[in-house]
Amino acid sequence: MLIYVFPLSLYAIVAYNTCVCDWGEVLTERRAKWRFGMVGGGEGAFIGQVHRLAAEMDGAACLVCGAFASDAERSRRSGRELYGLSDERCYPDYATMFAAEAARPTDERMQFVVIAAPNHVHVPVAEAALAAGFHVVCDKPLAMSLAQAEQLAGTLAKCDLEFAVTHNYTGYPMIREARALVASGALGAIRRVNCEYLQGWLASDASDNKQAAWRTDPERAGAAGCFGDIGSHAENLVSYVTGLDIVALCADLTTFVPGRELDDDGNVLLRFAGGARGVVSASQIAVGKENDLALQVYGERGGFEWKQSDANSLLVRWTDRAPEIRRTGGPGLSAAALDAARTPSGHPEGYLEAFANVYRGFYQALDGVADADFPDVEHGVRGMRFIERVVSSSAQGGVWVNFEE
Amino acid sequence: MLIYVFPLSLYAIVAYNTCVCDWGEVLTERRAKWRFGMVGGGEGAFIGQVHRLAAEMDGAACLVCGAFASDAERSRRSGRELYGLSDERCYPDYATMFAAEAARPTDERMQFVVIAAPNHVHVPVAEAALAAGFHVVCDKPLAMSLAQAEQLAGTLAKCDLEFAVTHNYTGYPMIREARALVASGALGAIRRVNCEYLQGWLASDASDNKQAAWRTDPERAGAAGCFGDIGSHAENLVSYVTGLDIVALCADLTTFVPGRELDDDGNVLLRFAGGARGVVSASQIAVGKENDLALQVYGERGGFEWKQSDANSLLVRWTDRAPEIRRTGGPGLSAAALDAARTPSGHPEGYLEAFANVYRGFYQALDGVADADFPDVEHGVRGMRFIERVVSSSAQGGVWVNFEE
Amino acid sequence: MLIYVFPLSLYAIVAYNTCVCDWGEVLTERRAKWRFGMVGGGEGAFIGQVHRLAAEMDGAACLVCGAFASDAERSRRSGRELYGLSDERCYPDYATMFAAEAARPTDERMQFVVIAAPNHVHVPVAEAALAAGFHVVCDKPLAMSLAQAEQLAGTLAKCDLEFAVTHNYTGYPMIREARALVASGALGAIRRVNCEYLQGWLASDASDNKQAAWRTDPERAGAAGCFGDIGSHAENLVSYVTGLDIVALCADLTTFVPGRELDDDGNVLLRFAGGARGVVSASQIAVGKENDLALQVYGERGGFEWKQSDANSLLVRWTDRAPEIRRTGGPGLSAAALDAARTPSGHPEGYLEAFANVYRGFYQALDGVADADFPDVEHGVRGMRFIERVVSSSAQGGVWVNFEE
Amino acid sequence: MLIYVFPLSLYAIVAYNTCVCDWGEVLTERRAKWRFGMVGGGEGAFIGQVHRLAAEMDGAACLVCGAFASDAERSRRSGRELYGLSDERCYPDYATMFAAEAARPTDERMQFVVIAAPNHVHVPVAEAALAAGFHVVCDKPLAMSLAQAEQLAGTLAKCDLEFAVTHNYTGYPMIREARALVASGALGAIRRVNCEYLQGWLASDASDNKQAAWRTDPERAGAAGCFGDIGSHAENLVSYVTGLDIVALCADLTTFVPGRELDDDGNVLLRFAGGARGVVSASQIAVGKENDLALQVYGERGGFEWKQSDANSLLVRWTDRAPEIRRTGGPGLSAAALDAARTPSGHPEGYLEAFANVYRGFYQALDGVADADFPDVEHGVRGMRFIERVVSSSAQGGVWVNFEE
Repeated sequence: MLIYVFPLSLYAIVAYNTCVCDWGEVLTERRAKWRFGMVGGGEGAFIGQVHRLAAEMDGAACLVCGAFASDAERSRRSGRELYGLSDERCYPDYATMFAAEAARPTDERMQFVVIAAPNHVHVPVAEAALAAGFHVVCDKPLAMSLAQAEQLAGTLAKCDLEFAVTHNYTGYPMIREARALVASGALGAIRRVNCEYLQGWLASDASDNKQAAWRTDPERAGAAGCFGDIGSHAENLVSYVTGLDIVALCADLTTFVPGRELDDDGNVLLRFAGGARGVVSASQIAVGKENDLALQVYGERGGFEWKQSDANSLLVRWTDRAPEIRRTGGPGLSAAALDAARTPSGHPEGYLEAFANVYRGFYQALDGVADADFPDVEHGVRGMRFIERVVSSSAQGGVWVNFEE
Repeated sequence: MLIYVFPLSLYAIVAYNTCVCDWGEVLTERRAKWRFGMVGGGEGAFIGQVHRLAAEMDGAACLVCGAFASDAERSRRSGRELYGLSDERCYPDYATMFAAEAARPTDERMQFVVIAAPNHVHVPVAEAALAAGFHVVCDKPLAMSLAQAEQLAGTLAKCDLEFAVTHNYTGYPMIREARALVASGALGAIRRVNCEYLQGWLASDASDNKQAAWRTDPERAGAAGCFGDIGSHAENLVSYVTGLDIVALCADLTTFVPGRELDDDGNVLLRFAGGARGVVSASQIAVGKENDLALQVYGERGGFEWKQSDANSLLVRWTDRAPEIRRTGGPGLSAAALDAARTPSGHPEGYLEAFANVYRGFYQALDGVADADFPDVEHGVRGMRFIERVVSSSAQGGVWVNFEE
Repeated sequence: MLIYVFPLSLYAIVAYNTCVCDWGEVLTERRAKWRFGMVGGGEGAFIGQVHRLAAEMDGAACLVCGAFASDAERSRRSGRELYGLSDERCYPDYATMFAAEAARPTDERMQFVVIAAPNHVHVPVAEAALAAGFHVVCDKPLAMSLAQAEQLAGTLAKCDLEFAVTHNYTGYPMIREARALVASGALGAIRRVNCEYLQGWLASDASDNKQAAWRTDPERAGAAGCFGDIGSHAENLVSYVTGLDIVALCADLTTFVPGRELDDDGNVLLRFAGGARGVVSASQIAVGKENDLALQVYGERGGFEWKQSDANSLLVRWTDRAPEIRRTGGPGLSAAALDAARTPSGHPEGYLEAFANVYRGFYQALDGVADADFPDVEHGVRGMRFIERVVSSSAQGGVWVNFEE
Repeated sequence: MLIYVFPLSLYAIVAYNTCVCDWGEVLTERRAKWRFGMVGGGEGAFIGQVHRLAAEMDGAACLVCGAFASDAERSRRSGRELYGLSDERCYPDYATMFAAEAARPTDERMQFVVIAAPNHVHVPVAEAALAAGFHVVCDKPLAMSLAQAEQLAGTLAKCDLEFAVTHNYTGYPMIREARALVASGALGAIRRVNCEYLQGWLASDASDNKQAAWRTDPERAGAAGCFGDIGSHAENLVSYVTGLDIVALCADLTTFVPGRELDDDGNVLLRFAGGARGVVSASQIAVGKENDLALQVYGERGGFEWKQSDANSLLVRWTDRAPEIRRTGGPGLSAAALDAARTPSGHPEGYLEAFANVYRGFYQALDGVADADFPDVEHGVRGMRFIERVVSSSAQGGVWVNFEE
């Protein structure tokens, strides 16, 4: 009963790239400021293509190598068919890749690695990459546990390397606008936050689907299922936009599908420093919901509403005047929102462009821009803390737990 | 800073009725199956006009008397100017009204009373009405405490009289459809419920507004502010539509406006019999939100979404086919939804028509229809239990409390 | 295949009033400033109940008599069952009604008549009513021809009586706001108008449906089908909101359903005095559309969009700032819009309330208010001119015709 | 007063590429099946970046050269800064480029050219490209006149080369779905089509804006302004989705902004072979509208609605059941719609992805796929015929003109 979400779409990507319009055999030279490799993202993985496309969208970077699968032959085949790479730079494993790439001339070797593999792989690969001197872009959640994430952050602190965690929803222009709006003080102190992230694709047993299989397996996903995969995105969006610190939370997680080992649904009450309150709902069993991330924030003098299904609008409400619809590329936006758009208003920008904005910020950091806007390792550690607190609260029956120790 | 909500609208009503088109002096005879009186609903009260209009909408009933205010002169003036009644049937207080009306000939006297006064008045008036042999339509929340509500229910059980509590949101055609959809089993067992009821009209101090003043005063409103006024509507909507029993809840209430004595915001986690989970958010400080009640329900095989701001649509989602938009008066509806509409599809029905549907059901009950659909005293008692449990949970720091003893 | 539009809804009304909660036998006295009779609106007619409900909504008027059907017995039965009237005041025909009512004491007789019958009946009844000294509320289109309408207007000019034509869509609060916005000059000179009125209920042969039968019969509907029924509403809305005069038009009407004698679809280009341009689309064969009236207006400095399916919002756009959503009862509205609302913002108002606002304006006129806002005989004549010009243009193959002679 | 549309967004692109994250100096080799050059798209041009991004999105192609501006130095600078090209392959003009590229080894030279320059340049460049043996992707409208377009089509017919015209709105997944839905016959014969393409960015004089300047100049834009730029897109969308042939049209164009030489607004009535009727509205002066393309189609048994501002939804209506919302990547879609999506449902796809789908189809054609779906020269010629007929009809006062001779 798995269904309609990944397989169909995945099919579209794979079918196209492998059958219809292959990458050709001819090598073309082009300038690219940044060269990167990928770990994971091989056949059957949806997110690998998203990373390649987003990272390369503005022309600033180029995928040059990868360890796409745990099997050497599959890695080569994926590299060739999905990414147009020569066999030589498709490695059987990440250790080999890091060693081989480090040995290449500086103007040829990869400069950063994208970790697009299941969760249990994130930290080992990241540690190895840092050790080999490569910058890192890592999928979320950052690690299998908070302790592991903190250890990684410790490692990173000793390196002069950049590290991004792809909390990609921070890349939407109207999310940038929302953040700027809160920061401007126009809304007054924030009081209430509602965040929903509802999906329905795991409403029944889906263990025969590759994407579903690892996400519902504690060995590969970690201590949380739904909250590891998407609840952590919700936390990140709330934290990014409001700048508020969670002080305590109370979680009620559930596993609805029989036989599943991890949560597939839950609600979490939040208390923030300064007195604001919030609630996060996340679900993988909300039948028919697609990838429906929505955020509401209310302050003393104004509030707003955003939802991914209408990502280019930010509905802003005030105490004393009619609500307004701020739009990607439209009038009255903050510099942060304007910088995040690629086309004039009315030319809808979507998920891939938002994802590419995470890379934009990362490249700015690589260029030495001090306040480049991208989700970094702190986001990743906070996300792991959120997951761990949520699981702990729920396991104790839904009690309030402090966010920090 | 009160603002834009009640005063403006109220002005529109009052201005019209008192200044522009008075009720005239000529008495007109018309048939009306049911005659009713009102307690409360005098000058400055918004809900009194709503009751009159809704109760009389279909022509089945007629307001014939009232004790509209605690002051005899204001009662008379309200009756004359707002409701077109003769002085003779505008009483100085409800006790006088019940006695005087009971003494009238049966084909002339009021048959039921509408209690449209602040919460602390509900039970005393209701008890007196029942004692005098009148049916009752009472505003929510039913009482000042659960104990008081249960005592009233006990009184009622000994009478052969009907009792409605105006949880009016049950009257929307698409809410009737939602209830029928759940009851049909098409969605499978229900798993997740999200209900939001967000308003912004009390985002700052509003004690100079009559509507706001009593709602934020524990002496007149009871133990809860926001959750007494609108949180209880949310509970009612959830219970009515899903038919699920709440087993336990965990509430986090807040008072954001300085000096206010009652909660003006809160979130509540819910556990239902059978395993479903839910969350209710209610607020009076969500700046710019109007009267935004929204409900999402997800079952094993389908789910739906409804919001009052688009009240004539019910968005129904399924595992295996495209979402559908069921519409008031449109194709494919249940009998319950069809019966609740007054106009063909595409002629928007609103709040007043939904409110009138509560009266429709009540009149059916008066006519002896066994399964007439209207919120009765059980709804009212359950609502009080909800309020009491929410307040108790929150007062203990947000712990889980059982819904029943 | 007709189906889902009228029958179901109609059923709901009739079923309720006749079977479930009859009007009772007891006469109740109430004050009502205005007493009215009805012609038409008998069994099977949807619009009669709408008129009664809208006219009585605010309590200012009361239906006291009617000639509801061409058959005496059906008239009595309709009066009794649908409207709660005594047999004595249910007349076999309008002539009898006018004579009998005129003979009653002034404080008892009807003061105005509502003409809720097919189009061919409008003018004869209206002429008779005026001759008998009764004010008139008449359904649209006003007449069977422009000449007939002009003659009626001539008759009226010689009487001291009020005359309303129920172009009811002018009653929506946000339409009032739109009109005030244009009149304020804030948008600058108007340049472009788009108006759509799309229905689907006549997409196939519907001659077995009473509502459809007369609307598609030239003997009863007049020279136009779709444009007589709803195209004329579109013209009225455009004229009312913009205040612009049509100078010329070019129409392309079609009859899509085989065997139908009148147009069921069409598009009309408009040129207005002052240079604005517009287009009106109206259809009864736009499958699945309900009663979807929508209006867009663009001026030099701003514009707006309104649609009946979201009737309480007016989306206003500007050259230099974000679009705003003005809302019924919300902040920033004109007095005209505020006066047209009955409830606070967020309590959706719909079709019936808008219809009742036409009656509000009419009652103000009866009270002598000079600038009472309601569609009068001039609206009706202009509507007939529109119909006649549209039919003429289309009959000539779609040529430009002048609006005035 | 120009404004908010292009400058801001453009700024975002330019600022990023030139200031923040330059293309670097290092040459990277990658496989790319197709290599292309560009004519136009230099500094200040928005569409050049769109072409590069869309053409390269899936990794199948790579920009290798260009004649980006009419000035050699600006061409070099644009190539270097906007596109990361070496000076050597940034040519001073297209003739030089075609000659130089043709002289390169086959595995190195460009294979097709993208013409992203103002309209008057399209045909000369296209003719030269074809003469030099290069495939062509050309912006719309195809030419300065129908005759010129037909001559180009004649040239092409003699070559064994592919030719695309970037009517990019055909690339949206839900437009593909709409087309498949019509073609399936499920809607029955089509009866009514409404298409709106409303923008507001030229509501006042904008001649100081580069994008605006050439679009309002007959020497560079051709005989139509608004209808050349966006009216032709509307025609293309209607024709692509419905497959209907226009038989005759009647147009009313206007120039609202003083001093402007070309139309900036208009409405066109359409008659199609088989009896369907339609209307197209296009405007550049609809204040506050962004890039609002919307399409409604109604057949005998069903209809649908699509709008670019909610591009991933297709609202489908039926005579006998509730409307459904088909969604990009969602259940129940045609193969054509599935193939056009890159991500799972709920990951919004936008303008750039749709544009990239035009390139996908073009690449399939280059690969010899017989029925590759992309707008070809016939679309371009038909678009020119539409423009010419619209201008001719309007110039004659708005008369009906035959579409074919």
